[in-house]
Amino acid sequence: MHTSELQWSTEEKAIAKEAIATAYSREISGLVQVVRDRASSLNSMDDLWQLHDFLSARRHELDGKYDDRESALLFVFSSLVKEGWLSLDELEGLDAAKLSKITALTRMF
Amino acid sequence: MHTSELQWSTEEKAIAKEAIATAYSREISGLVQVVRDRASSLNSMDDLWQLHDFLSARRHELDGKYDDRESALLFVFSSLVKEGWLSLDELEGLDAAKLSKITALTRMF
Repeated sequence: MHTSELQWSTEEKAIAKEAIATAYSREISGLVQVVRDRASSLNSMDDLWQLHDFLSARRHELDGKYDDRESALLFVFSSLVKEGWLSLDELEGLDAAKLSKITALTRMF
Repeated sequence: MHTSELQWSTEEKAIAKEAIATAYSREISGLVQVVRDRASSLNSMDDLWQLHDFLSARRHELDGKYDDRESALLFVFSSLVKEGWLSLDELEGLDAAKLSKITALTRMF
């Protein structure tokens, strides 16, 4: 899959940017809610350090996840769709080849 | 200050153990409360990572703090008294030389 050879039009770039921002906002809101819930039932030091481990893992994961380089976008979108942070509908406007690759990647990983 | 040469009687060891457990429990309870409060006002990713940084720092600090080796006890107690997790009264029963060293250390650092 030669994603690096794909051309992104100005319109597609705008759609991609918006989709990434939407997914990111949803994922962060979800994470904020999880952390609030976990924090409200904290009791022991073990609970504290489990919360710390959880945040360490999420931070590491999120640091590399929202890669907006064009060469990474198809992989990024397939992950976000698979994880439920984005629907394929929200990528409407990308050309059919890109959408088809995103769908294929969603099934592969 | 030759803390390593001090002898700790069975009674003193019991007092030290109890005092450490008391201070530890108080400090963890305080930390749980702080984390709950911070978590309840989380909103953004920055807030999440600030909470993560805060927990990283506390974990690092607490990992080395409650050292219950006899050679470390006077330093541990002076820190705990200084930080308010323990009062000198709660060390009653230790011999006068130890209490006096703890008091002196509390003033030094």
